[in-house]
Amino acid sequence: MQKETRMVALLTDFGLRDPYVAAMKGVIASIDRTVTMVDLTHDIPAQDIAAASFHLASVYAYFPCDTVFVSVVDPGVGGTRRAVAIATEGGYFVAPDNGILTGVLSQVQTVQAVNLTNSAYWRVPVPSHTFHGRDIFAPVAAHVARGTEIDVLGDAITPDTLIKLPLKSCIATAHGAIGAVQYCDRFGNLITNIPAAIVQDGKWSAQIGTLSIPSVQTYSDRQIGDLVALIGSEGWVEIAVNCGNAKETLQAELGTIVEVAIR
Amino acid sequence: MQKETRMVALLTDFGLRDPYVAAMKGVIASIDRTVTMVDLTHDIPAQDIAAASFHLASVYAYFPCDTVFVSVVDPGVGGTRRAVAIATEGGYFVAPDNGILTGVLSQVQTVQAVNLTNSAYWRVPVPSHTFHGRDIFAPVAAHVARGTEIDVLGDAITPDTLIKLPLKSCIATAHGAIGAVQYCDRFGNLITNIPAAIVQDGKWSAQIGTLSIPSVQTYSDRQIGDLVALIGSEGWVEIAVNCGNAKETLQAELGTIVEVAIR
Amino acid sequence: MQKETRMVALLTDFGLRDPYVAAMKGVIASIDRTVTMVDLTHDIPAQDIAAASFHLASVYAYFPCDTVFVSVVDPGVGGTRRAVAIATEGGYFVAPDNGILTGVLSQVQTVQAVNLTNSAYWRVPVPSHTFHGRDIFAPVAAHVARGTEIDVLGDAITPDTLIKLPLKSCIATAHGAIGAVQYCDRFGNLITNIPAAIVQDGKWSAQIGTLSIPSVQTYSDRQIGDLVALIGSEGWVEIAVNCGNAKETLQAELGTIVEVAIR
Repeated sequence: MQKETRMVALLTDFGLRDPYVAAMKGVIASIDRTVTMVDLTHDIPAQDIAAASFHLASVYAYFPCDTVFVSVVDPGVGGTRRAVAIATEGGYFVAPDNGILTGVLSQVQTVQAVNLTNSAYWRVPVPSHTFHGRDIFAPVAAHVARGTEIDVLGDAITPDTLIKLPLKSCIATAHGAIGAVQYCDRFGNLITNIPAAIVQDGKWSAQIGTLSIPSVQTYSDRQIGDLVALIGSEGWVEIAVNCGNAKETLQAELGTIVEVAIR
Repeated sequence: MQKETRMVALLTDFGLRDPYVAAMKGVIASIDRTVTMVDLTHDIPAQDIAAASFHLASVYAYFPCDTVFVSVVDPGVGGTRRAVAIATEGGYFVAPDNGILTGVLSQVQTVQAVNLTNSAYWRVPVPSHTFHGRDIFAPVAAHVARGTEIDVLGDAITPDTLIKLPLKSCIATAHGAIGAVQYCDRFGNLITNIPAAIVQDGKWSAQIGTLSIPSVQTYSDRQIGDLVALIGSEGWVEIAVNCGNAKETLQAELGTIVEVAIR
Repeated sequence: MQKETRMVALLTDFGLRDPYVAAMKGVIASIDRTVTMVDLTHDIPAQDIAAASFHLASVYAYFPCDTVFVSVVDPGVGGTRRAVAIATEGGYFVAPDNGILTGVLSQVQTVQAVNLTNSAYWRVPVPSHTFHGRDIFAPVAAHVARGTEIDVLGDAITPDTLIKLPLKSCIATAHGAIGAVQYCDRFGNLITNIPAAIVQDGKWSAQIGTLSIPSVQTYSDRQIGDLVALIGSEGWVEIAVNCGNAKETLQAELGTIVEVAIR
C-alpha cells in the first residue's frame, strides 16, 4: 500500500512544551489527515537560524526525495522577510527566507522557487502576525503534500535571491585544513566544518590549541576516556571522548578553532 | 485515501523520558493499528491541571472536529474522581473529571457526557490504581477513534456536573481591562487572560507595575531588546521582548497583574 | 483498513535535540513509507544500557505482538560487539548485542536469533563507524516491518550467547524481601525490583534505612505530602509521595536498599 500523499517533516525552535508544533500538525491534518508527519527536531535554540540550517542540511537526504520539509525558526515573523517554497531534487522546502535554507542550498540544485503570496493556500481567517508556522507554512506544506505544484503558491523568484548565511570557512593548508567547531551534539561530540574528503585517505591528527588528538576509525578504538578524532556519521571531522564528553573535557564551544594535519 | 478511524491527540504530564506515553500508544495500536496518534504536549508541569486546561483549550480547534483528545494530568488517579468522555462539536474529550476540561468547556457546547464506568472498554486485566491513562483512557480513546459512540462507555452525566477550575478573571475597566499572566511560553512571552476583542480596534498600551509597554503588530516592529505588547497567535494580549525574554526582563510570573489602557 | 506493514517502535539515547532519530525514521520511510513509527523514549541517559533494558522490558508488551522494536544505546558502535535481531512471541527486537535486551530476554522466549551480517539489508553505501542506528538497525527494522523473516538477515546464533547484564537481585527474607531502587521516574517515584507477587495478598510496609513507610492502594489514599508504598503500574513495589517527590524527600537514588515486611 503506497500512500498517495507526500510525507511532511517538521523542524522548529518551538520546543515541545507548548503545543505550537501540535497546532501546525492539526492544521495539516485538517487539510488532509492521511499525511504522515515526522519531527526532525523542535529543540533548535530559540531563533538560532544557523543551527536550524545545519540540522536541516544534515538530515533531509535520509528522507524520500519528495518529502515536504517545513522549517520554522522565524525571528522576523510578521515583518518584511519573505515566506518561500522551493522545489529541489532532494525534496520540497517551505520556510521563511532568512538563511535557514543555507545548508540545503549548498547541497542541492533548486528547480523552482516561489514567494508564498497566494493567500488561497493559507489558513483562514487572515494570518496572525506572530505565528506563520501555523497560518502559512503548515497549510502550504499540507497542500504540497497533497500534490499541489509550487508554482501556484505565489510569485516565482530567482533562487539566487534566497538569503544565505555567512558561515565560517574551512581553509585548506599545506598539511591539511583549519576549520572550526560548527556544532556540539548531546554527547558532547564536537562536529567541525572540516569535510571527510580532506583526511580520509591518509593518517592524520587533529589539533585544538596546543593539544594533538590522534585519529581513529571509531570511538572504541581507544581506551575509555581518551580523546579521539574521527570522521563522524555526517561526514565531518569530529572530536570525541570515548564514553565521555569532549565539549566539557576541552572546554570547547561553537567556533573553537580545530586544525587537521595529514602525515 | 481517507482513513476510516478518527485521529487521537494526547496531552499528559508524563514527559517523554519514561515510556508512559508509549505504553498508552501501544495500547491504542493494539486495539486498532490504523489510528493516527499526535502529541499535543507531554511536558505539562507535574500535576498542573490549570496548565493542561490552558494548553488543551489553545490547541484543540486546529484539529479535525472529530478528533479524540486524551488528556491525562491526574493527581487523583485511583481515588474517587470520575473518568469521563464528552462529545462536542469540536471533538471528543477523554479525561479525568478534575477540571482539566475547564478551558474547553468554556468554548464549546457539550453534546453528551458519560462517566466511564463500562469496563468492557478498559484494558484487561483490571486497571492498576496508578495508571488510568494506559488502562482506561487510552483504550476508551481507541474505541472512540474506531467509531464507538460514547453513550455505551458508561452512565450518562449532566455536563453541568463536570468540575471546572476557578480561574483568575479579566475585569473590564473604564479605559480597558485588568487581567493577569496566565501562561509563560518557552520564549519567555507572557500570555495574559485579556482577550484580543478588548483592544483590537484602537491604539492601546499595556502596563505592568508602573511600567508602560507600547503596543505593536508584531515583535519586529521595534528594536531588538524592546518590550512590546501585542495580540498573540492564540488571541490573547501578550507581552514580549523582540528577540528576548519578557519573563526574565520583567521578573514576571503566573498571576502577575497586567493592565491594558486604550487611548 | 488493516495496514500491511508491522509497526516500528524506537528507543535510543540520542535525545530529540539532534536529528539522529529523524535520520533513522527517514531511512525507514525511504524503504517503506507506510511503516508506522512510534517513539518509546529517546531520553535514556547517554550510554546507559541498564536503563534502556529496564524501559524496553517495561513497555514492549503493550504493543501489537508483531511490532519491531529498534533499541540503540550503543557505546561499542563500530567495535567488535555483534548487531542482532531476535524473533519472540512478544515481537521482533533489533539492537546491538550489549545487554540492552536483558530485561526482555528474562520475560519472553526467543524463537530465533541472528547476527546481522548480511549487508544486503543495510543502508548503502557502507555503514559509518559511528551510527549503526541509521545505517544498520533502521534499515533492518524497515525490512522486518515489511515482512522479511529474520533468518535472511545474517547467521543464526544461539540465544544463550546473547549478552545479559548482571542486575541487582531481590532476595526473599523470612518476613518479605530485600531489594533496591531500580529506577526513578519523572515524578520522583522510586521503582524497586521487588515484584508485586511478594506483597499483594497481605498487609505490608516498606522500609528505607530506619524509616517505615505504610502501604496503600493508590497515591491519594493518604494526605498530600505523605510517603506511601504501593504496587506501581508496572508491577513493582514503588515508594512515592502523594503529590510530591519521593526521590527528593528521601534523598534516594538508584541502588538504594528497600526492604519489604509483610505483617
